[in-house]
Amino acid sequence: MTAATYDRSAHDAVELIRLKRDHGRLSQEQIRWMIAAYTDGYVGDEQMSALAMAILLNGMTREEIGHWTAAMIASGERMDFSSLRTPEGGRRLTADKHSTGGVGDKITLPLAPLVASFGVPVPQLSGRGLGHTGGTLDKLEAIEGWQADLSNDALLRQLDEVNAVICAAGPGLAPADKKLYALRDVTGTVEAIPLIASSIMSKKIAEGTDALVLDVKAGSGAFMKSRADAVELARTMVALGTDAGVKTTALLTDMDTPLGLTAGNAIEVEESVEVLAGGGPADVVELTVALAQEMLTAVGITGADPAENLRNGRAMDSWRQMIAAQSGNPDAALPQAAHSHTINAGVSGTMTRMDAMSVGLAAWRLGAGRARKQDAVQAGAGVRMHAKPGDRITEGQPLFTLLTDDEHRIARAQQALEGAVDVDAEGGPHQTPELVFDRISASDLTD
Amino acid sequence: MTAATYDRSAHDAVELIRLKRDHGRLSQEQIRWMIAAYTDGYVGDEQMSALAMAILLNGMTREEIGHWTAAMIASGERMDFSSLRTPEGGRRLTADKHSTGGVGDKITLPLAPLVASFGVPVPQLSGRGLGHTGGTLDKLEAIEGWQADLSNDALLRQLDEVNAVICAAGPGLAPADKKLYALRDVTGTVEAIPLIASSIMSKKIAEGTDALVLDVKAGSGAFMKSRADAVELARTMVALGTDAGVKTTALLTDMDTPLGLTAGNAIEVEESVEVLAGGGPADVVELTVALAQEMLTAVGITGADPAENLRNGRAMDSWRQMIAAQSGNPDAALPQAAHSHTINAGVSGTMTRMDAMSVGLAAWRLGAGRARKQDAVQAGAGVRMHAKPGDRITEGQPLFTLLTDDEHRIARAQQALEGAVDVDAEGGPHQTPELVFDRISASDLTD
Repeated sequence: MTAATYDRSAHDAVELIRLKRDHGRLSQEQIRWMIAAYTDGYVGDEQMSALAMAILLNGMTREEIGHWTAAMIASGERMDFSSLRTPEGGRRLTADKHSTGGVGDKITLPLAPLVASFGVPVPQLSGRGLGHTGGTLDKLEAIEGWQADLSNDALLRQLDEVNAVICAAGPGLAPADKKLYALRDVTGTVEAIPLIASSIMSKKIAEGTDALVLDVKAGSGAFMKSRADAVELARTMVALGTDAGVKTTALLTDMDTPLGLTAGNAIEVEESVEVLAGGGPADVVELTVALAQEMLTAVGITGADPAENLRNGRAMDSWRQMIAAQSGNPDAALPQAAHSHTINAGVSGTMTRMDAMSVGLAAWRLGAGRARKQDAVQAGAGVRMHAKPGDRITEGQPLFTLLTDDEHRIARAQQALEGAVDVDAEGGPHQTPELVFDRISASDLTD
Repeated sequence: MTAATYDRSAHDAVELIRLKRDHGRLSQEQIRWMIAAYTDGYVGDEQMSALAMAILLNGMTREEIGHWTAAMIASGERMDFSSLRTPEGGRRLTADKHSTGGVGDKITLPLAPLVASFGVPVPQLSGRGLGHTGGTLDKLEAIEGWQADLSNDALLRQLDEVNAVICAAGPGLAPADKKLYALRDVTGTVEAIPLIASSIMSKKIAEGTDALVLDVKAGSGAFMKSRADAVELARTMVALGTDAGVKTTALLTDMDTPLGLTAGNAIEVEESVEVLAGGGPADVVELTVALAQEMLTAVGITGADPAENLRNGRAMDSWRQMIAAQSGNPDAALPQAAHSHTINAGVSGTMTRMDAMSVGLAAWRLGAGRARKQDAVQAGAGVRMHAKPGDRITEGQPLFTLLTDDEHRIARAQQALEGAVDVDAEGGPHQTPELVFDRISASDLTD
């Protein structure tokens, strides 16, 4: 890790805070100094939190956000995938995906092997989940033997041989972001779009991927509740990636409703394997294929049909190789929760709404997620959904199955699901909203 | 000192920060908790600085500012002057003055004994100066033997016997303000009107005065550069005092031009004594008399003529008693600076401007003020002015005399004065702006 060097006397933290406070623009040099001096401890937490609040309330320009992101990247190491070569010696371009997180969002699991099955290296460096949206690593750890931690060498070797890697991001990427994120968490400054965008993109750019597809979610189960905020975040991140030379596009997707029919860990792996076997819920298949198409196009593969590789077993072959390469046993039975409890429909009719936040909260309370970083998760815990908006339901039929190892968790999970489902007793047809509601690419940016 | 008690689990600092960040209003209970938990160290500096920035940018209501001030008062001790009685046993109402600070602002020195000469007790608890505006205590310490520190008992005794006291505010008044002010100083959050107002007023209300007259200055040499900001600050402070049962009025005064013909320590004492002897510069006399009139009226004395007590020696008698009561020798010669340097006029004409900030900065550089709390000041240092805006000047006549014990300080003081004076060579009459440009009392407050 190489920390950025800086001259302590070059700037004064109070002057830079006042500049942003008074709606001014910070220069590249000022931002570099601030981030380096903060990472080093010369600028104090109380100064950075005042600046973060001023950024949250007064914003930053595209240029400032770019400098901020670059300064966070400079605080740590950068990875380099340029050694990946074709037999003829050409560069093999990598494609990565990042989702802002949602309930039942297991898309990375089928997506990485699917894109890899077209010969594209997919370095999917992930984090662990906090709160109501599960983490990709937590889900994969439900698989017997599977290891999340890889050395950089092992990561590069696996990318070269298997194409797909999903593993833990090392601590060397953007350490300034780690320190700043912890500060924002306790100072009410998480919800600043410039800071969210630079936090995500500093890690993705430092990772060194050639192409990046963003899945930016909006809705009750997402970090961004409004579509307008999600679009602003997507535009900001596409601009950052583009300016840093990463081919970046974003799909804006609905997160008012959970994705698929499962929210948990082992049960999401199971559903992902169904998709890789050519089946699975329509919404999970639709989003997996849409994101795969974006990733393939971004590295120059046109005319490919991702859905075909789900049907013909190639994506499944990639999955099995990827899991096995990280010591996982793709044939082992998945863990089962010790207790289950079914919630049945109270009326007949057409389901018109299933609230993503409620389902995520229930899965979290059942033990699928963690409240603190150091907590463990239950592999078998979660929520199975037996119907989705648009489906006809009959009084008494199962709507949810709650799964947990701790029976006492069921009552609070049930509470979370109270009022989570709306049913139209008239039973007329219900039009579900489009899953992918917008797309942002570099050509959509005007400034 | 009695620290406020609070229940740690009653609130969450992040929730309160988010509330103000999102333009919400903090309740009395939330503000009490935040200030008590911050004073105690349970709420961290990084959290309070984020809240301070949100307050600076989003404001507070009159009610919130009142609760904030009350919470700061509750963090420490309150003084009580109700034991001051007339021979007949009636209450003797006290009157205090606070100035937001300006260049050459020695008004407290003649004002306190002038008001005391009418039998009104004046408890003038003061701070030390930082930056380009000098401190009242620094000026008085130029007098041989004079002591700034008094016990509460000695203060009360002197008030009873001499009526006038100018002394250092003890550490027990509003300790939360002390901690918060130090934090604001390093986080770019000094310039928040709600926080400036509550900082000043928490100490004045805790001091327990019955009446308070505020001298709120606007202009280049003042903390508030614009008249609009000064009026807003004045209104906020008058509201706070009124709501706390202190009879409070404010005069809005010009600080584009220095007050009087001296800026320093001993030389300002000398000028104050001239005023107490019935002479002195017209602007210093005008403001002293105007503020005295406000203070007398506030404690129910009407029809008094303060100017008369400057002419008849009664104010001077009070001054001598006040200085002697704090071990000072009113007859001792004042310290003289070791070096002096005169700056002469380069052209003839009518002076149309003398920049207060430049003069203050020059006096500060000469050694009259301090850069850090622990620095000492030079008693003899400062700037004497030989003409003021509106005066006719002749090429070659002295404009300024620079005084310092360190000859090497003169060059930088001269730099500060470059461009500080404008002269109209046509020599026509020049209309100087009104010194007192507005007055705010409780009846001017609408909300």
